[in-house]
Amino acid sequence: MTATEIKALTFDVFGTVVDWRSSVAREADAFFGKHGIKGIDGIEFAMEWRKLYNPSMERVRAGEIPFTKLDVLHRMNLDALLARYNIGGLDEAEIDWLNRAWHRLDPWPDSVEGLTRLKRKFILATQSNGNIALMVNMAKHAGLPWDVILGSEVVRHYKPCPQAYINCADALGLPPEACMMTAAHNNDLVAASRQGFRTAFVLRPVEYGPDQHKDTKAEHAFDYIAKDFIELADQLGCP
Amino acid sequence: MTATEIKALTFDVFGTVVDWRSSVAREADAFFGKHGIKGIDGIEFAMEWRKLYNPSMERVRAGEIPFTKLDVLHRMNLDALLARYNIGGLDEAEIDWLNRAWHRLDPWPDSVEGLTRLKRKFILATQSNGNIALMVNMAKHAGLPWDVILGSEVVRHYKPCPQAYINCADALGLPPEACMMTAAHNNDLVAASRQGFRTAFVLRPVEYGPDQHKDTKAEHAFDYIAKDFIELADQLGCP
Repeated sequence: MTATEIKALTFDVFGTVVDWRSSVAREADAFFGKHGIKGIDGIEFAMEWRKLYNPSMERVRAGEIPFTKLDVLHRMNLDALLARYNIGGLDEAEIDWLNRAWHRLDPWPDSVEGLTRLKRKFILATQSNGNIALMVNMAKHAGLPWDVILGSEVVRHYKPCPQAYINCADALGLPPEACMMTAAHNNDLVAASRQGFRTAFVLRPVEYGPDQHKDTKAEHAFDYIAKDFIELADQLGCP
Repeated sequence: MTATEIKALTFDVFGTVVDWRSSVAREADAFFGKHGIKGIDGIEFAMEWRKLYNPSMERVRAGEIPFTKLDVLHRMNLDALLARYNIGGLDEAEIDWLNRAWHRLDPWPDSVEGLTRLKRKFILATQSNGNIALMVNMAKHAGLPWDVILGSEVVRHYKPCPQAYINCADALGLPPEACMMTAAHNNDLVAASRQGFRTAFVLRPVEYGPDQHKDTKAEHAFDYIAKDFIELADQLGCP
């Protein structure tokens, strides 16, 4: 299949389009400074928060709890983390503000330019585990030019569950092979590929920091492999 | 409430943002010409097709049939119309192309400029009875700068059902009073207002042609009343 037959690019967002680690660390450091909370490193806090992400979605995937928006899962995980760090005395609005750090993530340096170029030729859809409000607020904050917000809250399933990809293509009114999953994570692309999606790997070697050991390269024969979105736009003929 | 407290504008699309009547007529005329179908006026065909729109959604609202995407309702109505006009001998791809005339509607002359200005200050969400693929393809065709596609397929209800508005605000993570329904139709605004939405009426006096007798003025004390999206952008302080 050639690039001209691909109609939509569906994007993983956390890590692929935005740098959650540095952004959440920055938000956490600012929050701790404002509230006189000492001795907690923002990067460590961001990493610990993120560690709870997949296990909380796994409870939904396994049917242990009904579909729950990521904002709510993030908040459950944040409450657990604040307790673990013995951080108390915060009011609801303050905790909610910190929880919505995930709405204020910054893009990687190439994301806005690369996506803007890709948008001239393709439908750009988020296919993220983030909920709609999170994705919309992040796009406004970061200047991300999505055509449509899809992903977990629309498809009612968390990746890499097959139905997440199937429902995404269906919402776009496209066969899966007209959609290309675009992600920095091998497992996301493999799962999309199993449902008939095309695949594009974009390298994000420091998503988890300088010692990252996972997803440091494309481990499968994906349709496109690029070092960033600008290179992907070049490969797909988007000037 | 002042304009600065409104976070999102939620838009009716058919008639408010795009001129379905002229656009479907143009598509129908081109289709009839290509297939040698004589004696049917495109405008008449568009108006007859549109007459079947609300009754078909009413079957969903009444619970007579389960939630069904507008593309599918449009197709059921088109099949009925083709039979009524004794138009036969078309293959599936041809009928599907005509059905997707609704994906290729043109904006009113002020829509793109007005929405582009409004987008600088507000989240722009579709709150249309159109399905996701229809809205995305229309936006690509017409250059409509939506931040997020909401509406029937996301909220699983057809306006003016209360749940359509309630679920829309919920998806945006906003209280209804932070959302402003923007429409050329009095009944849509009244229904949104009952759920706590702010309201903006935008006049489209020829949506149904030169003899339009409905929605020729704002019939209630809406928060904003404008002759087009450029005037609305002026009123809302969007340069």
